[in-house]
Parts: sequence; C-alpha cells; structure tokens
Amino acid sequence: MIMKNHNSTIRKQSININRSVLADAGFDMLNRGVSKRIKNITTSAIKEMMRLSQNYPDAVSLAQGTPSFLTPKYIVKRIHLELNNNPDIGKYAPLTGLAQLKREIAKRLKKKRGIKADPKTEICVTVGAMQAVASAIMAITNPGDEIILFSPCFPSHIAQINLTQGKPIFALLDESNKWALDIDEFKSKISSKTKAVIICNPSNPTGTVFREEDLRAIAKLAQKHDFWLITDEPYDFLVYDNLRFFSISQIPEIKERLIACFSFSKEYAMSGYRIGWVYAQAGMINQMLKIHDAFTISAATVSQYAALAALQGSQQQIKYFVREFAKRRDLICRRLDQLPDFFSYHKPQGAYYIFPKIKIDIDDFDLAIRLLKEAKVAVVPGSSFGPNGKGHLRFCFAQSQEDINKAFDRITKHFQ
Amino acid sequence: MIMKNHNSTIRKQSININRSVLADAGFDMLNRGVSKRIKNITTSAIKEMMRLSQNYPDAVSLAQGTPSFLTPKYIVKRIHLELNNNPDIGKYAPLTGLAQLKREIAKRLKKKRGIKADPKTEICVTVGAMQAVASAIMAITNPGDEIILFSPCFPSHIAQINLTQGKPIFALLDESNKWALDIDEFKSKISSKTKAVIICNPSNPTGTVFREEDLRAIAKLAQKHDFWLITDEPYDFLVYDNLRFFSISQIPEIKERLIACFSFSKEYAMSGYRIGWVYAQAGMINQMLKIHDAFTISAATVSQYAALAALQGSQQQIKYFVREFAKRRDLICRRLDQLPDFFSYHKPQGAYYIFPKIKIDIDDFDLAIRLLKEAKVAVVPGSSFGPNGKGHLRFCFAQSQEDINKAFDRITKHFQ
Repeated sequence: MIMKNHNSTIRKQSININRSVLADAGFDMLNRGVSKRIKNITTSAIKEMMRLSQNYPDAVSLAQGTPSFLTPKYIVKRIHLELNNNPDIGKYAPLTGLAQLKREIAKRLKKKRGIKADPKTEICVTVGAMQAVASAIMAITNPGDEIILFSPCFPSHIAQINLTQGKPIFALLDESNKWALDIDEFKSKISSKTKAVIICNPSNPTGTVFREEDLRAIAKLAQKHDFWLITDEPYDFLVYDNLRFFSISQIPEIKERLIACFSFSKEYAMSGYRIGWVYAQAGMINQMLKIHDAFTISAATVSQYAALAALQGSQQQIKYFVREFAKRRDLICRRLDQLPDFFSYHKPQGAYYIFPKIKIDIDDFDLAIRLLKEAKVAVVPGSSFGPNGKGHLRFCFAQSQEDINKAFDRITKHFQ
Repeated sequence: MIMKNHNSTIRKQSININRSVLADAGFDMLNRGVSKRIKNITTSAIKEMMRLSQNYPDAVSLAQGTPSFLTPKYIVKRIHLELNNNPDIGKYAPLTGLAQLKREIAKRLKKKRGIKADPKTEICVTVGAMQAVASAIMAITNPGDEIILFSPCFPSHIAQINLTQGKPIFALLDESNKWALDIDEFKSKISSKTKAVIICNPSNPTGTVFREEDLRAIAKLAQKHDFWLITDEPYDFLVYDNLRFFSISQIPEIKERLIACFSFSKEYAMSGYRIGWVYAQAGMINQMLKIHDAFTISAATVSQYAALAALQGSQQQIKYFVREFAKRRDLICRRLDQLPDFFSYHKPQGAYYIFPKIKIDIDDFDLAIRLLKEAKVAVVPGSSFGPNGKGHLRFCFAQSQEDINKAFDRITKHFQ
C-alpha cells in the first residue's frame, strides 16, 4: 500500500492555504503511504522558518514567539526543591494533573475571569495551550464540520482543524479598522455546519485586543446557532496603553459551550516547560481526556510543579514583562516607521506581534525567505495566517531590544 | 448543532471493545456536540482504573505501569545544573528536539539496534513514546485503513487508531503457547486495506518476548504486502532469564517502512518527564512533525536535558532495575500460585506485567471494579486489551515488593 514506487519523496507540495517553506527549501516530504489529512497541512510556517533558520547560525529570529526573559527565580527555586524532596517528581502525574495545581488554577480562574470551576472535574492540565486546543477540536469535529477562525489567525489552528478533516472557515478581520472583529462578516460565515469558533484574544498575529461589544455579539450568535466557543488566550495578561482586556469566557451565559485554553508559556516565561490547562464542563473534559491520554498521558510532572509555583508566587514579574514588551513594541514601531516605503502597520494593542503590510511588489513567502537568506533575519510570511494574511509579514517583538535593533539594521541595509 | 437538548450528558456508553469504567461509575460523559470518533473510544482502562482509584485513598495500585524507583541521581544532578546555568532551559526546544540529544540518540540507536540514523533528519524527540505512536498513526491512516494489533494489545493503540477513523484489526496471540505470535493468524488478518502493524515487544500486557523467527516472518509479510511497521518497545531493556531480545527494527530490509518509537520512562525511571523519541526516514519525520507541532510543539526542554543526561550516564541503574523487577516477577508468580482456584498464568519473559486468566465465573470488568471497591486493589480488566483479553486481568509488578505483597494479602483475603 505504501511505497511500490521508489520515488516516494517529493520536493514540492502545492497546498491551498499554506505554502511550505521547508518543501520549497528541498526538505524531503514523503508522499506515498501517508494519510490525505497530513498532505493537506504544513508544519506551522512559524516553526518552518525556525527550522530553516538553523541553516543560518548567525540569523536573528523575530519568528517564534519565545519571550527572551528567564523563568522567574521563585519558580526555578521551587523546581530545585521538588527535585530534592519529592519522591514523585519523576513519576507520571495523574491524568488530569496534580490536584493542588488544579486547585490553584480554579482560584486563578475565579479571580481572573469570575468563573467558578470545580478543580476536580472541570480542569485538565495540558502540554501547553496547544494540546488543549488540539484536543478540543478533535473532541468535537466530525469530517466536514466547519470551524470559524478570524483571519489572520494562528496557523496551528488551521492545521488542527484539517487534522480532524474539519473545514476551517475564515471570517476576515477588518484591516481598515485596526484588524477589528467584523460581526457582519462573521455572521455571513455561520452555516448549519458551524461547529465552533476559535477566539485568540489578544490576536496573534495582529495584536488586536477585541472589543467587548463584538465578543458579546459573538456569544449571542453562538447561543442562537448552537456552536462551541474555543478560546486560546495566552496573551491575556499583555495589553498596552491601559486598555481593558475582556475575555468572551467572562460571559456566564456561554458556560455550557465554552472550552477555554490557557498557557503558562508567556505570562511566566515558561515556554520550554510545555504547560497549560483547559477549562470546560465535566462531561467535555472527560471526552477530551481520551485524546489527552492517547497523545501525551499527562504534562511533565516537573512542569506541573513549576506551574504550581508560578501561580503561588508574587506575580510581580508580570508587570515587569508587560513594561518591557511595551518598550519593545514602541521600538519595533519606530524601526518600521523608518521604512515607510516598504511597510505600513497598525500598532499592536496587545500580545507581542506586529503584522505589517508589505508595500513593495513581492510575495510574502518570497520576501520572508529572502530576508532569511540575504539579511539573516527570520520572520513569518503572512499568507500562512489565512487568506487576508497575504502580502504581510509577522514580526515577533518578544526578543530583546538589542535583537530587534540588530534585525532591523539588517533589514534596513537589505532594502538599501 | 451541539446542545439543543439539555439532557446532554449520559451516564453509560456502550462501546464495542472497551467498556468504560468511568462511565459505569457515573462520571459525566457529554454526548451531544462531540465527534463520533470520540464516542467510539474510551480513556485507556489503565487510566480509568487509576482515576477511579482516587476515590479510594488507601488503595494499592497494580494498575498503571509506573516504576517505583527514583530517577537516577546523575540525571537529577544534571537537571539542577542546567536550571542554574542554561539560559535556554525555560525556552521552547527546537521542534525536533535538542541537537545534542538527537546525536546521543543516534549513537544509542547504532549500539542498540545497529541502525545508522541521521540525527538531523531521521529523529524527533517526543512527549513519550505515546505521542510518537499517536503521530505515526495519524500520519499514515486514512478513514477505513486497517492497522493490525496483536491482541491482547496496549489499549491506547486501539484509541489512537480509532481517533483517525482507522480500523483496528486484532491478530490474536496464542495463549496456549505462552502468548506467542501466531503467524498464520497474522497472515489471515492482512488485507488490501492493511496500512500498518504495531509491534509492542516485549508485549504489554502479556510479558511475552517475541521470537526472532516470527518477527522476521512479519517483516517479510510487510515487504510483500507493502505496509508500515510501527514499533513501540519501552521494555526492550527488560527481559528475564538471560533471554535474548530481538527487535524487528534490527532487520535492515525494512528500514524504509519502519517507524520506531522509544521511551525513557521505564529504562530510566523517568515516566513523569514525558520524554521519548521516534526514528523514521526523513520524509516521514517531516510529515509526523506536522502533528507533533499541532499537538505539543516540542517535549519539555528540562525533560530533554534529563534525557540527554540519561544517555550520557553510566547505565548501571538499568542492571539494578532489571534485577529488582525479576525479583518482583518471581514474587507475583508465587502469590498467584497460592490462588490456583482463581488464576492461571504464563510467567512473563519480559516487561513488568502479568496477564492471568480468571478461573471463576465473573466478568473481568466486574472483578476489577469489585477488587478496587472491596479489596482496595487497582488492577486492569483484560477486556480492554482486545478481544482475547476477556476473562483476564493485568497486574503490573513495577511496584515495590511491599506493595505487591499488600495487594495480594488483600486479594487473598477477599477471595476467602
């Protein structure tokens, strides 16, 4: 069934939404004996650019969203302590996570969102928000079901939907209005096959903080048309200019149709610990556990203690992170302002991404690859974020000011 | 689409192969608005029994396969060191894993299996062997494709296949011949839809170490009928009585159809670190990365350094583990010998599971639940391991001799 033909690898794959940077670069991609679903997706262009940039050791990366900060000391101290004293630190954690961690998460959920969750039945600790969202989508989606994404959207959400043979439907954010939600556009994308909408707020890649009134309109439509609301909000702590953050999960009426996914990666500079969590009604958590079990069993125990320490600590570092990210945002905007013939942009209101429009006549994939090869700067082509991402680039500004300056010195020189 | 009916939870689910202990016990299981695939599987009965046993705080567990040993000191020492000195320890690892870890893995693969792997392109570090196998199955399986499992088999493999809408096909191991492979039986299960066979050697749950000649016969059939060979061999270090272990992956002719999954959990008492790896040809690794990325991004960085330390260390603890597990095997056999009216069994040749037949007239699910509720001992019902698992129980003997004795004192008392 799989490899009668010895020419079993192909060099290029033509893919509807996502062009594969790696396939373009000549990475082997087996094409015979693999599933149709896998041929229809790519690795996220973010990771593809990271992987390709390994060929350029002196490249500066503004591609992957990794905070430059060290994990706060009080968290690392706790890991040392557990390694020394806890005989269970090297053993499987319970399937849904450590009981004490889930209790702290429930407290946090109450404080942050006003949600009263039962830590025993309504919370599961996951391998990052990524695994939470992937499990949610797999738990609800039948082949042909439609899941609405706000485009430009996080590329992994597209892949996660395609892996279940669901269909990603793109509701376009309004670039002319600072990439805001467009409720009429959203309405026009709802059909009898709509199974869910995924909300990533603040938006990755545009940095938009969605308006409460728009989110309330979406919640009403979810109730009217009976679909799930999946939230993926790793940047909920990171809004600028004293803007108020409102999460759709704060609306009590949608509790029964909510699957809320959270991450420790950004707020606590813990991306490497691969730890997050999901909140949903007990009957849904029990369904998602089947996928959780079959893919990961549980999140690493050491990471769960790190997360426990994170929630129990002072939280002072978060204010520091937000202040620093705000400086980096201002810096990257200044640097883009110096390239007015090449880029136009909306200033991000949250998260640490900016999504400028390319003003010169070049494909965004080609420009991203050229910047990597010639200027040694890794950024992400906009097309990989959905249909209206075309003609844009995503820059991450989670890196140090020094790295941001170095990257833009190189880009500026390249354009000269 | 999802919850027009407010009676959206059900208390029982009738499932073809797997009965759900949790559903039986009254755990909420949402039934509306969820995907068909999720309704067709359960959480592994191993985890279900673990979860149910949380209701009995003084229960002794011989259910989940967690080694009782502490992670070796040289590994923990390295983690402390990295936490103190490595600025990248809290940050995302590269998608396919740390370069130095993959180099050590390639060395190990050469030494252990005689396989010459390119660490840059043919190895990916995963969240345990579990994620490796799940990603492999998802990367190859179209709906309706058949994947052959040797029954009794590891329950999560059944779930992993069903999640992709593939069809698990059970080739029965021969209980009358110490649960050996039966090649005629296997041949009879091959069809034009056969996409792969999964080989778990030494076998979980039977403890069989498969014979080289049988494995060579399977390899020939894979070449003739053109299907994938997926190996899941976390117990490859653990064989008793100086038996020689042979892995099908050692046969060079099947290199192009091999996806070999490995775990650090058992050999290094590192189950809580959730770390394993997969070896396959580059074009297949690149396909599997799409799933790896969409579900987990990467294994925890701290766990990757722990794994690196594990491979670089003396390996002395492995001999100690094997000696101790051998004593526990002898102990559990002696204890079962004292219950000749209730159980008969084949002495395990490898791994740390024993799969005795129940000689009294009671359903294995009912007996497992009764032993938990009344004797406070958690074991796993045999039916969850495939069709010919019915009428058996799986006991794990990775626990201390004290725990094994305590469990059997209780079981013996219960039967009196």
